[in-house]
Amino acid sequence: MYFPGLEGVVIKETKICHIDLENSKIYYRGYDLEELALNSSFEEVAYLLWFGRLPSSRELEEFKNRLRSVRKPPRHVEEIVASAPPSAEPIDVLRTGVSALALGEDLSARDIEAELRRGERITAAMPYIVAAFHRLRTGQRPVDPAEAASHAEYYLWAVRGERPTPREVRALDVMLVIYAEHSMNNSAFTAVSVASTLADMYAAVTAAIASLKGPLHGGANVDAAKMLEEVGSVQRVQSWVDEQLAKGRRIPGFGHRLYKKGPDPRLRVLRLLARDLAAERGDFRWVELAEKLEEYVTSKLSQKGIYPNTDLYAAVIFRYLGLPVDLNLPTFAVSRVAGWVAHVVEYRQSNRLIRPTERYTGPLGLRYVPIDQRG
Amino acid sequence: MYFPGLEGVVIKETKICHIDLENSKIYYRGYDLEELALNSSFEEVAYLLWFGRLPSSRELEEFKNRLRSVRKPPRHVEEIVASAPPSAEPIDVLRTGVSALALGEDLSARDIEAELRRGERITAAMPYIVAAFHRLRTGQRPVDPAEAASHAEYYLWAVRGERPTPREVRALDVMLVIYAEHSMNNSAFTAVSVASTLADMYAAVTAAIASLKGPLHGGANVDAAKMLEEVGSVQRVQSWVDEQLAKGRRIPGFGHRLYKKGPDPRLRVLRLLARDLAAERGDFRWVELAEKLEEYVTSKLSQKGIYPNTDLYAAVIFRYLGLPVDLNLPTFAVSRVAGWVAHVVEYRQSNRLIRPTERYTGPLGLRYVPIDQRG
Repeated sequence: MYFPGLEGVVIKETKICHIDLENSKIYYRGYDLEELALNSSFEEVAYLLWFGRLPSSRELEEFKNRLRSVRKPPRHVEEIVASAPPSAEPIDVLRTGVSALALGEDLSARDIEAELRRGERITAAMPYIVAAFHRLRTGQRPVDPAEAASHAEYYLWAVRGERPTPREVRALDVMLVIYAEHSMNNSAFTAVSVASTLADMYAAVTAAIASLKGPLHGGANVDAAKMLEEVGSVQRVQSWVDEQLAKGRRIPGFGHRLYKKGPDPRLRVLRLLARDLAAERGDFRWVELAEKLEEYVTSKLSQKGIYPNTDLYAAVIFRYLGLPVDLNLPTFAVSRVAGWVAHVVEYRQSNRLIRPTERYTGPLGLRYVPIDQRG
Repeated sequence: MYFPGLEGVVIKETKICHIDLENSKIYYRGYDLEELALNSSFEEVAYLLWFGRLPSSRELEEFKNRLRSVRKPPRHVEEIVASAPPSAEPIDVLRTGVSALALGEDLSARDIEAELRRGERITAAMPYIVAAFHRLRTGQRPVDPAEAASHAEYYLWAVRGERPTPREVRALDVMLVIYAEHSMNNSAFTAVSVASTLADMYAAVTAAIASLKGPLHGGANVDAAKMLEEVGSVQRVQSWVDEQLAKGRRIPGFGHRLYKKGPDPRLRVLRLLARDLAAERGDFRWVELAEKLEEYVTSKLSQKGIYPNTDLYAAVIFRYLGLPVDLNLPTFAVSRVAGWVAHVVEYRQSNRLIRPTERYTGPLGLRYVPIDQRG
């Protein structure tokens, strides 16, 4: 049977994530994502996604210590990041670096425990890979903020080279929680597809990063940041949007395949975060620009099922955090790896090789003509 | 609808490859693979798979020249290969090297022409990446056999450091033709899945190599080579096989999901090649061992639909060619990239994002308990 894009095809049962469109809620392992975002940390949520329950204080401390101990990747990965040309796309450097994490490790054990340890190593090392590349391409030395308490603090510190404020750390932490998982999208599916061959976690996550890059998946998230830059001020919103719509163009940061009856539930928290960072900086320009865009575009397009998506406020938050625009996508990966690992582990528990089929519509039995007799 | 492993789910129409199980034939673009193997070269077959028709002499010459001109990857890829620890698995180095090929290239063009050029660059560079890593890990310098006329000659020469004989080149060339494509398996599907996000060819092929590694896909092909080593002589075949079967173990090099009514059609050519190389070397030990294994295992298991697969004779041929056992899998990738690129290009012509779904079976509405109040 032919299912274009596999739409509607169930490929597995899951206990990881549920998106409740009716009530505008997302659940991770049964917990309301909004509650997790407001109360939890990236590490706690990664633990929840991977092990299926919230950790005790001691379990969380041990988990954080394990991550901390492998934040800095092996020497050859540092060298590989240093070899990357400065003009490289950061997401491609991240994919290459994660692929390289496998090199030299004994990969013979393929049980769930071994794969989870690899998931920890990958998750812990991704901030370093992204940040070190960014430092090197801007002529600065990679920093190794050994004292950073949390994953979010470590990442911000390593990218910017200076210690972030607690509010900045909190904002990034909430972002990492919010993006950590979102059900069966193309990158999660690609990770599962690769893992179904019993290839290891490095292979699965490398493939997932490859998928995330595509403009129909994560790769367009930079467009919202570019739009904020281009529109520039609240006063220009109306004319800019009208012009885009008149030209039949889509508005970056708006529209989502799933959320057609109302905005993405994650927006509520993202708006709060954006406001909070703006207040700390005393600079409301970008959050107000996003709010104005949301208001105006929604008034024009909500009847078509088009609402703001998370890219809009993520772009504002990344800007306030001082992250360069082309790190938006790798930052998304730094978070989403938690979901990829969870899906791989879940699928492996009742693994079955993914192997669809295709329908042949070409000719058969063509006669091979030797090359010197071809026309 | 739930389709475990996506079995029976058609994900695209195709004009690339047809496997005719009834008549034990495989077709590439309508041409009998056996005829292609006996008359054609890897380059000609890659052209056929990508462009849909056999090239004229001039087109083939131009195509080979383009491949030749990008055999040696950019300097940063050489550095990355040199950074890999000697204990790394060669297939993982290849995945990392192909991922790194993307770095520094302007990837903004996403049309089919641009992706085909990337496919050429990847295909051309893969032999260098595998061979250079092998040379370096064995304490030798990478060789850059600029004079090598064909892809197959280049690869053998670069791995071994000395010019191969014409018969050896021909044998590898036929191997590369035979493995170039085999319909919608997991790696081809993974490439298509990634490409469906509009991620570029480097992303798609990197993901496909990640998939190929899995023991349920390409990753078990080394087992047949290990078996030949373990069995050692024709005299031991019967007792060794009987012992394996008594222990309920599978026999490497036997059994295939598709070929249950008779052996894989590619075996006919592979047997000829193995005999031919044995004759050149005056050493029939390995081919006779494989033939004896084929005869005895088939007598025991054919009624269960288990026949030899290509791994059995591929292991013999790789051995005669002097390729180290752990290069079997990357050599498979060096060939199969032709098929991956063809599938990506075909899918892109009527692209649709691949995004299946899953069925949530977990709890909902769990109460978040602050960490200091957890039991």
